[in-house]
Order: sequence, then C-alpha cells, then structure tokens
Amino acid sequence: MPSVKAERAARTRQKILLAAAEVFDETGYEKAAVTQVVERAGLTLGALYFHFGSKQGLAEALMNAQPTTIEPHLESTGLQRVVDITLVWADRMKRDPILRAGVRLAVEQGSHGMNDASSFEEWRTLMRSHLDVARADGELRAAVDPDQLARFVVGACTGMQVYSQLATQRADLMERVQDMWELLLPSVARESLADEIQVDSERVPAS
Amino acid sequence: MPSVKAERAARTRQKILLAAAEVFDETGYEKAAVTQVVERAGLTLGALYFHFGSKQGLAEALMNAQPTTIEPHLESTGLQRVVDITLVWADRMKRDPILRAGVRLAVEQGSHGMNDASSFEEWRTLMRSHLDVARADGELRAAVDPDQLARFVVGACTGMQVYSQLATQRADLMERVQDMWELLLPSVARESLADEIQVDSERVPAS
Repeated sequence: MPSVKAERAARTRQKILLAAAEVFDETGYEKAAVTQVVERAGLTLGALYFHFGSKQGLAEALMNAQPTTIEPHLESTGLQRVVDITLVWADRMKRDPILRAGVRLAVEQGSHGMNDASSFEEWRTLMRSHLDVARADGELRAAVDPDQLARFVVGACTGMQVYSQLATQRADLMERVQDMWELLLPSVARESLADEIQVDSERVPAS
Repeated sequence: MPSVKAERAARTRQKILLAAAEVFDETGYEKAAVTQVVERAGLTLGALYFHFGSKQGLAEALMNAQPTTIEPHLESTGLQRVVDITLVWADRMKRDPILRAGVRLAVEQGSHGMNDASSFEEWRTLMRSHLDVARADGELRAAVDPDQLARFVVGACTGMQVYSQLATQRADLMERVQDMWELLLPSVARESLADEIQVDSERVPAS
C-alpha cells in the first residue's frame, strides 16, 4: 500500500504535469516559463525541480504520458483495440491538455533542440502488443507484419494530426482516423473480419 | 520570351530561396537570421525584402515550393505516379535542402506562430489530380474517394517523416513509404492492378 507521503508526492507530480500541459499547449515550449507552471499549479519551483529536474524533463514526461491518457478508456482486444485507441485518441485530442501538449511537444521538438523518438516508440510498442494478440487470434492477413503496421499507424496518426490541426483546428481529426481504417482494414484484417471491426465514433466513451 | 531582366530576377529569387533553405534546415525558423541568408546568397537585404517581403514570407515560399522539387523527376501517370511522387519525395528528403526546409517549416510552424495549411493542401491537390486520372482510367476500387485518399497520403507521409527523422535521421524513410503502399495498394487499386504497381526504390531517378 502506498504511504500517505507517496500518495501526496504523486498528487503533486500530477498537478504540475497538468499545469505544464496547459501552459505548453497554449504557448509552445519556447515561450513557456516554469514560473508560470508552478503559479498555475499553486506549488513551488522546488517541487517542480524535485519531480522533473528541468523544463526539458517536464516536456519529456509530458511526451511520454500520452498513452496513459488513452488506455483507461478501453476494454476491447486485438485489432478492434488498436482501432479504438486511435478513435479515443482523436476524441481526447480535442480536450485533454496532457495529451495535446504531449503530441505538440513531440512533433515540434526539433525546433527547440530535442531529438527524442521515445514517445513515438512507446505508442508503437502499445499498438504492437495488441496487434500481436490480433495475430495470435487469427485476425490479421498472413502478409501483415504487426510491428510494421504499428509503426505505420503511429506515423500516419502523427501526420493526420498535424494536417488536421492546421486545416481545421482538429475538427476533422476523427473523420480522418475513420478514413484511415476504411483504407487499411480491407488489406490487414482477414477476409470476413474487416466488416466486423467497428470504426464508429460512438465507440468512444463520454468520459 | 522572358526578358533578360525577368530572368535575372528569377535567378536572384532562386538563389535566396536556396540559401534560406539551407539556413532554415540547419537552425530552424526561430534562430535563422535574414542577414545570414543574404550573406550566404551573396546578395543584399534589399533583394530579399523585394522578393519575399519578410522572414515569414520567405518561410511561406519555402513551404509552398515543395511539390515543384519533385514533379520534374517523374514521367508516370495515375496511381503509379502518386506512388512515384512519394518515392521521389522520400529520396529527395535526404539531400534537397529546399524540400527539407519546406517540410520542417510546415510541421514546426505552430512553434513560431504560423498556422498555414496551404503547403499541405498543395500536395493534396497534386495527389488528387493524379488520382482523378487513376479513377478515369479504372485503376481505383469503386469505394475509394480520390480526395480522401489524397488527404490521407499527405497526412501519412508527413507523420512518417517526423517519426523517421527522430528515430533514424530519415535512414528508413524510403522503407516506411514502401510499407505504406504495401498496406494501401490491395485496398485501393482494382484487383489485378495492385501487383503491377511498382514500389521499388529503383524507380527513383538518380537526380
């Protein structure tokens, strides 16, 4: 059982992360100030440095927190779960500041001197684990390599998000994700399964 | 016939664009200085402002110059041409500074206050025009909408590039583009055509 002290530390960490997400999402990495983050969190600079070490450490934690904001909302398995992850992601991108800041920081990191693929690799590993289940359950066509498909889906989602944000402030992101699956499912799912997989935005829990 | 003066102006414009591409590609938008650009081009600040108006005007011109660096290298039609555009693009990203700067600026523009989807829409219009030919020539499956497919390919290429750059400094970009077509072609090309379309990097002219 976690001690009262450990629980308090976890709460403090989460408060800082949320405040930082809001600040990074609003202003981008370069213009964000750690003083602004701790003011918004109602905490001290000491707490921020204790938990995250630096502004860059905070950005890294946000980039890597992305999948944890998605997984709790899901119950499916295999290929349906991979589809669901992308649907929940498209929905949460509209209103979850931690997810939004994480994606923004990951995509724009080149412009502030970071060069870290680990948040992408984390998504890929997550997708891959569910595609391995899909493979074991006979859901995939023989030619499909779960790892390559996972890599492609992560890359495609990243780019659809950048494009959708610039073109429509993400209003059409869900539709773009659905288009992706309409294009991919006939190639990757075994014959009779492609029509069974649901790509309906109704699948996304209201949260 | 263009006058000598018009030709000189076009050459000057191109010189500035190439120098700017190198500077933006090396340092990113924020740190790039227009004085550095004109020094490298061997020209004056007056010439830069005459042709591009401002640093942001220069960045916009670079973002929109992307497709013009690809089209001269191609001769195919329809679906094969769309595949070829992405293969040439993956190859040129490794060594064409104008293309590289254009992509970098387009993806990172949020971090320097720009919000312009036009370079994405230009790629989409280009892809769409060749997919309309593919549709007219009976190359596409009935369910495929050329415009949605064009939108998806542009988004997917954007994201594959970001991910590939961070993971391998673009060493695997060509392989990722080939993976995309292996996943998409069975769904989008009419039955017997899918195997005829060539996705071989040998198709890319040596420049």
